[in-house]
Amino acid sequence: MKRAEYPAPLQELIAQLKRMPGVGPRSAERIALWMVSARNARPTEIASAIAAVSEGVHPCPQCGFFTSEPLCAICADPERVREMLCVVETATEILPLERTGAFRGLYHALGGRISPLDHVGPEDLRIPELLERVRTQRPAEVILALGADVEGEATANYLAGLLRELPVQVTRIAQGLPAGGGLEQADELTLSRALGGRVKM
Amino acid sequence: MKRAEYPAPLQELIAQLKRMPGVGPRSAERIALWMVSARNARPTEIASAIAAVSEGVHPCPQCGFFTSEPLCAICADPERVREMLCVVETATEILPLERTGAFRGLYHALGGRISPLDHVGPEDLRIPELLERVRTQRPAEVILALGADVEGEATANYLAGLLRELPVQVTRIAQGLPAGGGLEQADELTLSRALGGRVKM
Repeated sequence: MKRAEYPAPLQELIAQLKRMPGVGPRSAERIALWMVSARNARPTEIASAIAAVSEGVHPCPQCGFFTSEPLCAICADPERVREMLCVVETATEILPLERTGAFRGLYHALGGRISPLDHVGPEDLRIPELLERVRTQRPAEVILALGADVEGEATANYLAGLLRELPVQVTRIAQGLPAGGGLEQADELTLSRALGGRVKM
Repeated sequence: MKRAEYPAPLQELIAQLKRMPGVGPRSAERIALWMVSARNARPTEIASAIAAVSEGVHPCPQCGFFTSEPLCAICADPERVREMLCVVETATEILPLERTGAFRGLYHALGGRISPLDHVGPEDLRIPELLERVRTQRPAEVILALGADVEGEATANYLAGLLRELPVQVTRIAQGLPAGGGLEQADELTLSRALGGRVKM
């Protein structure tokens, strides 16, 4: 007698669900069993939603944000301030910035950041497209909204070097204490950057 | 200017993923963004796996376990001990029991348990099918592997009452200290049941 296992399609589903970020073997099994046994699971609706996104959502050819139209909602919005261009690493960082309500310009997602350890060089990023946009759309300011880690720094410095050749002001988002963070929780690097970036009151 | 949001198909996908157990709004967004932006996401494979399970996996007509065949792998296995029938609440509890390797008989999933608060009465469970199996397949023993909570107790007592009429021995899985659990972690009810269920050494 062999111990029973799930039927093959269910095992395959568990394996597929396990690939999703943040879903471990136990959650994958739990979700799969929910799909086959819960009354209101309607798993085909989930499958259709995945298929619809795979077929219908693509990166905006201009900024890289997600869209199901030729241009994304941000690039197509006539009320956007075209004088400011905010450079982010990936398209997933655009909505968090949008939700702050603090930026009304356009975006440019690089599709990653320079990281030799991950074999990502400048040639893998949408840098030529950025330079072309700056040349043709003539924004007054390019804001580098890149991470405060080593790769973010390297990417920012590399871009600043290239953009210096063009008639555009290049700025970088501030580094310092996070909101609600006390000095005692901040590490030394954060503190030294917060000091270096101090502003007049 | 309105703040940008995700395109409609992506919002729909996030809403659908959020319905899965253990997936909150943030994980749903994270999974959806991974599906549209990760290189190796291949989301259509996930969608196909869900569709394959929806179409191809159904409850075994005899025991209720998941199968894509007419009978499930357990019921169809000729090496199974047909003298023992293990009653569980739901089909999802069969594999955890299988993995113990401690049981070689057949199963019967009730499809739930008696719970007046959730409007589940005996008529909602696969109890007639259980009685019919006991009558026709004549197992020597029916093991009630039901939960140690109020609803599990109620269901076990109800079934024991019905099965008493039939020529079959009815047993119930033991209650007591969980493996690795010390007495100081156990609640009073567990301790009193462990005492009551003491066995000779």
